[in-house]
Amino acid sequence: MALNKVVLIGAGNVATHLGKALQKTGCDVLQVYSRTKASASELAETLSVASTTSLEEIRPDASLYVVALKDAVLQQLIPQLVKGKPDAVFVHTAGSMPMQVWEGHARRYGVLYPMQTFSKRREVDFSEVPFFVEADGEETLQELKELAGRLSPNVREATSEQRRSLHLAAVFACNFTNHMYALCDRLLQKHGLPFEVMLPLIDETARKVHELKPHEAQTGPAVRYDENVIGKHLSLLADDPECQELYEKISKSIYRNR
Amino acid sequence: MALNKVVLIGAGNVATHLGKALQKTGCDVLQVYSRTKASASELAETLSVASTTSLEEIRPDASLYVVALKDAVLQQLIPQLVKGKPDAVFVHTAGSMPMQVWEGHARRYGVLYPMQTFSKRREVDFSEVPFFVEADGEETLQELKELAGRLSPNVREATSEQRRSLHLAAVFACNFTNHMYALCDRLLQKHGLPFEVMLPLIDETARKVHELKPHEAQTGPAVRYDENVIGKHLSLLADDPECQELYEKISKSIYRNR
Repeated sequence: MALNKVVLIGAGNVATHLGKALQKTGCDVLQVYSRTKASASELAETLSVASTTSLEEIRPDASLYVVALKDAVLQQLIPQLVKGKPDAVFVHTAGSMPMQVWEGHARRYGVLYPMQTFSKRREVDFSEVPFFVEADGEETLQELKELAGRLSPNVREATSEQRRSLHLAAVFACNFTNHMYALCDRLLQKHGLPFEVMLPLIDETARKVHELKPHEAQTGPAVRYDENVIGKHLSLLADDPECQELYEKISKSIYRNR
Repeated sequence: MALNKVVLIGAGNVATHLGKALQKTGCDVLQVYSRTKASASELAETLSVASTTSLEEIRPDASLYVVALKDAVLQQLIPQLVKGKPDAVFVHTAGSMPMQVWEGHARRYGVLYPMQTFSKRREVDFSEVPFFVEADGEETLQELKELAGRLSPNVREATSEQRRSLHLAAVFACNFTNHMYALCDRLLQKHGLPFEVMLPLIDETARKVHELKPHEAQTGPAVRYDENVIGKHLSLLADDPECQELYEKISKSIYRNR
């Protein structure tokens, strides 16, 4: 296990779940860094490790630095982070950030992208998380694959360009899908109905695309352009212009792509 | 089993799955009606029953007529359908059509709304389908509940107004969600990536809202308004104005509702 001593840079959802999972596989998490004291302490406590809010105090003796930060922050922090750690491997976990962000700064670097949605309040089964890895060269690649392989059986290589496309597509499949659930919840609440009634439908909608292409799985008023129903729905949404506009635009998009 | 002799009016996805499920519970499906010969014959063959494309030839001796048609067609067809069948129960299966559509035409009537997404090419597990029923009075209500109860353990009463809200919310939770999957598929195809890689993320996104409210489950660039990522994604979508517009509008909606 070459990359066994880990420092986590960041204390958000990804850092939290990845940190816990790495500990479970036997990795030694040495320290947590976050700019905000509260976040750093919270994650450090969860993992029973030390924390710091100072870049200068990041321990130089880890074999792997895992950076899970907002993209803009990551870029700013790199030059100082890599200083004095010539043999370590540096990875970030971001979907849309090219690996080249490390070039000219670190000697050994790569990307460890877990394509999953992480919320602090929900446990994640890492055996179902697809990991996409990329590295500066064969040696680092093998070490990262070995590390990711301890977390999940689903590890693949992806170039920065492929990862960028995956991340964009994942925003549709996950974040936008979840927002459809959220708008559904808002509509149900307005009419005093519980969100739970929708769960069988939500589950079946997800299960269907294991078998049918999403395009073939489409049902409902938009795909058959049932003007009667669409008209009623739009007028029901007259008091919610945000939902009304999205209803109209998404329905038109469904019909165009039928 | 009071409503044991059934005629199906319509031969689309809902009629097909409901017809098969009713037969399995021991109902005697007498006949299938559809305006189009091919659809009528196809479903009739699946169920090994007779079919007709003529309203006059619909058998008058069923105890239950289940109408699963587009809303506009349903309204037109009612006067002729009910003629000469004074003791039968008439139901439709539509989410957005009020029960009152039967009033003044039939003596006994109601609604049997299965809130699920039905595609011909996929089998449906009815034990996971929530049914919402409504009826002209207590006697019909009990008979419809008994019938629905044979298909699913999840049977509730809902007024026409509640059903209308459920249907609207279901369009967001199912049809619009599925369209997010379809747009995801389109983006992946463009970059030569298989849709299958998204399934763990799609599944986890659905599972999360069993535990967290959708609003709490949200992750990704929009909810934290990561302009860096959002800007990259919008420029990646420059060649696909439809996806680009939806990306922008849905992201703004996520951020406003964070």
